[in-house]
Amino acid sequence: MERTIISDLTKKKGEKVHIAGWVDVRRDHGKLTFLVIRDRSGVVQGVVKGDLTDETKDIREQWVVSIQGTVNERPESMIKDEQNGDVELLVEEVQILSEADEMPFDLDSELNIDTYLDNLPLTLRSQKALDVFTVQATITAAFREFLTNEGFKEYQSPALVGGDAEGGASAFKVDYYKDKLAFLATSPQLYKQIMVGTYERVFSIGKVFRGEDHATSRHLSEYSSLDFEMGFIEDHEDVMEMTQAVHSHIAKTIAERHPDILKRMEVEIPLTPEKFPVVTLKEALEIVGADVNEPDLEPEHERQLCAWAKENHKSDYIFVTHYPVSKRPFYTYEDEDAPGTTKGFDLLFRGLEITTGGQRIHDHDTLVEKIKEKGMNPELFSFYLQAFKFGMPPHGGTGNGLERLTQLMLGLKNVREATLFPRDMNRIDNQLSE
Amino acid sequence: MERTIISDLTKKKGEKVHIAGWVDVRRDHGKLTFLVIRDRSGVVQGVVKGDLTDETKDIREQWVVSIQGTVNERPESMIKDEQNGDVELLVEEVQILSEADEMPFDLDSELNIDTYLDNLPLTLRSQKALDVFTVQATITAAFREFLTNEGFKEYQSPALVGGDAEGGASAFKVDYYKDKLAFLATSPQLYKQIMVGTYERVFSIGKVFRGEDHATSRHLSEYSSLDFEMGFIEDHEDVMEMTQAVHSHIAKTIAERHPDILKRMEVEIPLTPEKFPVVTLKEALEIVGADVNEPDLEPEHERQLCAWAKENHKSDYIFVTHYPVSKRPFYTYEDEDAPGTTKGFDLLFRGLEITTGGQRIHDHDTLVEKIKEKGMNPELFSFYLQAFKFGMPPHGGTGNGLERLTQLMLGLKNVREATLFPRDMNRIDNQLSE
Repeated sequence: MERTIISDLTKKKGEKVHIAGWVDVRRDHGKLTFLVIRDRSGVVQGVVKGDLTDETKDIREQWVVSIQGTVNERPESMIKDEQNGDVELLVEEVQILSEADEMPFDLDSELNIDTYLDNLPLTLRSQKALDVFTVQATITAAFREFLTNEGFKEYQSPALVGGDAEGGASAFKVDYYKDKLAFLATSPQLYKQIMVGTYERVFSIGKVFRGEDHATSRHLSEYSSLDFEMGFIEDHEDVMEMTQAVHSHIAKTIAERHPDILKRMEVEIPLTPEKFPVVTLKEALEIVGADVNEPDLEPEHERQLCAWAKENHKSDYIFVTHYPVSKRPFYTYEDEDAPGTTKGFDLLFRGLEITTGGQRIHDHDTLVEKIKEKGMNPELFSFYLQAFKFGMPPHGGTGNGLERLTQLMLGLKNVREATLFPRDMNRIDNQLSE
Repeated sequence: MERTIISDLTKKKGEKVHIAGWVDVRRDHGKLTFLVIRDRSGVVQGVVKGDLTDETKDIREQWVVSIQGTVNERPESMIKDEQNGDVELLVEEVQILSEADEMPFDLDSELNIDTYLDNLPLTLRSQKALDVFTVQATITAAFREFLTNEGFKEYQSPALVGGDAEGGASAFKVDYYKDKLAFLATSPQLYKQIMVGTYERVFSIGKVFRGEDHATSRHLSEYSSLDFEMGFIEDHEDVMEMTQAVHSHIAKTIAERHPDILKRMEVEIPLTPEKFPVVTLKEALEIVGADVNEPDLEPEHERQLCAWAKENHKSDYIFVTHYPVSKRPFYTYEDEDAPGTTKGFDLLFRGLEITTGGQRIHDHDTLVEKIKEKGMNPELFSFYLQAFKFGMPPHGGTGNGLERLTQLMLGLKNVREATLFPRDMNRIDNQLSE
């Protein structure tokens, strides 16, 4: 008999069906056994009656089974407000596809983070993890859908690069050919700018790498960056408008596709007003009561500023613009009307920066000057600079950390809970030994 | 005035418009100058008359301009069968956004491959490159669309790994924390199998890395892998069925969305019969007249076999199954009915292998045995093996090289022409010095 996926069972009331999946829960009640079965589409409760008890007596959580049975309607009083809450599967035949060891812990309990990470191949099967990475897949899909509709072209950005281009973040070194060192890209920045020269509007989703010596709850050695870059802008405000539209679309898409997950995780849909509030760094520092000459916001300031935006603008997002030139990479566009500050911005969301972006320098000679001012050698950028020798329009874009966005969207404490297989100072799958 | 993108001009006949883009071609004809302008949506011919000659006299190829003018219909006899072939833009105002150096070569000429690669930020603007990477973006989109509709979930596979798991392909070494070495993933194999345990059906698009000492036209140090993996299969034939459906959908989507590109590149849509031909390795060797005891196909055999499939089955694709266990990775499922051979397959397309796949071992103890048989230590696989301790369904999947698929789809000689920024033994952007 052909397999029915579990989400289709409610359309098959009274019919004989074949399902297959994992045992999520086993409950014994005297002569009745209840097996909650999970497949890719959801869960259903199966009922095993007396005559099958022998065949099913060993079946435990995570065993993989193939079941034939009848979809019975539940009596009115037993209907639950959940998937397949109005039906039950009367189990008539069971085939065991794969057994499982006894569970070392309750999958849905609150585990210590290291226990959770040490056992990912198992813990990723918890309802919470299933929900988190379902939302993450929707974030990437929504990002792509929106930008594709706006005329952006997807491209594949390189991971191996010849140098540590941005100069700031420390890049991992790779043992390349001919005794040469290569590096792992800390961002797709230079390549997405080159791609503006070909397609004008581009986006990429790919891994970037940071070899910083940080082991905080915010830092990952490898993460997924959602990047876009667009040509023919007036200034950074066009980029902010696109950024706001992308993030509003992501929030809306999650609200539409995953009301069940938001409910289960007790998460609120982000507040996305028609226009996200925008403040300069100086204004931001003033709002949080800090010294307006500080060159950056402290983590505590970011939290306060987000609280302010929520209270005063009903927004979970706020843009901060005009960081000082000294704090931004060489390609950042300096504001002619406010020298020393940049046409760049951060987007803060629920207390943390999730996006960095801005207008970029598009004039070749200015760019060479800025590289020198940062103490770097323009010759090392000769490949990239070709794009600017041959006509680049005013352009800008943003980079958005997928894992952090997922974390904040779902109110998770640690970004590792929003990262499938997190790599950091202390771990690649297994913990690194000292 | 708001900018109009060039593909919308034919809807604005007789109207004043504002466009912006790159100069693709400049042609002078006495008092008239023709400027072909390109933006993300295509090209249009602009006509500059006498009074603007001064302002436009320096404008050359790749300059970036903003133009205001009127969309005029071409006389019947001048209409061309191409984008905007029925209109012309009478240029009334020109603003130069960015200048460009004189072109070092004709962008649309047949360049030596090293010249092409040395100058990618410029050569990626050729019509051919624009077309190639537009098709590549469509391949990734079609792959995702199809699998998403089939209930597959996208996930982000790690690039940094703790060991060279597959044992065959040599992995690049990364200088990680605490004097530890990490490696760059040669495939997402082990992770996509783990993910079958959570979502049953998954796919990923990401970079993988091969440190082999090969500098042929087929090898890249970094490429994009389109991977999927699915649970609850009967055997490898279910995986082949899905693989065939994915590739047929990709071919169909390209035919639908890019008839213009196929025409320009003089490329034929792949032949996708209702059922791709399937032969065992033994049968394949017999068809090409080789020794049926050979453990693999030579490149020349692959070409002959594809020619055979095209002639006898009107198919540009052919599956070859049942490679020997000794030639396949440890996780490959051995065929009980044909011991020594595997329930694995390659998919050949137009003379080359583009896909490797098969059923995987899902039983924990068998897997441990196979790891030992390959001379590897199961303890190094403890993280991965957890998935199998806790119930894995029969499953399988495939990996598909995006660049090679693009190359063969478009009849390109070298895979580097289908790779945005190719990395190999001799090059990361710039050529490596000796």
